[in-house]
Amino acid sequence: MPEDQKRTKISVTINNREYTIVGTESKEHVEHVAHLVNEKMDAIHTANKHLDTTKLAVLTAVNTMNDYLKLKKEYDELLSLLEEEN
Amino acid sequence: MPEDQKRTKISVTINNREYTIVGTESKEHVEHVAHLVNEKMDAIHTANKHLDTTKLAVLTAVNTMNDYLKLKKEYDELLSLLEEEN
Repeated sequence: MPEDQKRTKISVTINNREYTIVGTESKEHVEHVAHLVNEKMDAIHTANKHLDTTKLAVLTAVNTMNDYLKLKKEYDELLSLLEEEN
Repeated sequence: MPEDQKRTKISVTINNREYTIVGTESKEHVEHVAHLVNEKMDAIHTANKHLDTTKLAVLTAVNTMNDYLKLKKEYDELLSLLEEEN
């Protein structure tokens, strides 16, 4: 890690518990991430009221990973398109 | 949802618990997603042995969401590049 990237500790609340996120990201970025995780957890909870918190969190991770892989596929397609053009 | 997209129920094991994922994705895709979530959970657990399972799962979701946002930024930049060229 470059010396000018100071590690920060940022506290966020997710699903009513506090988490300290250690990293080099800005407070705004970490809060935005936490907000999106909260939103997704709430949506999954609304659709599956019986889930315990651990299952809810794991399914939120699964859902986000699925979104990531879909976006990665689109990203790779876009990259091939750019490479073809050049 | 189009009628030809059959909803499937696929069981996967994540952090020693079983989850049923309902959706239209293939078994291979869902297993790949579960594998990546397991890998990320293991890595976070190795770095933070004291975390309880719920916190571990939430931090895995946070970490995945962070990866998603970073990729989204790169994707948007690539898209602007393509639009400038055309």
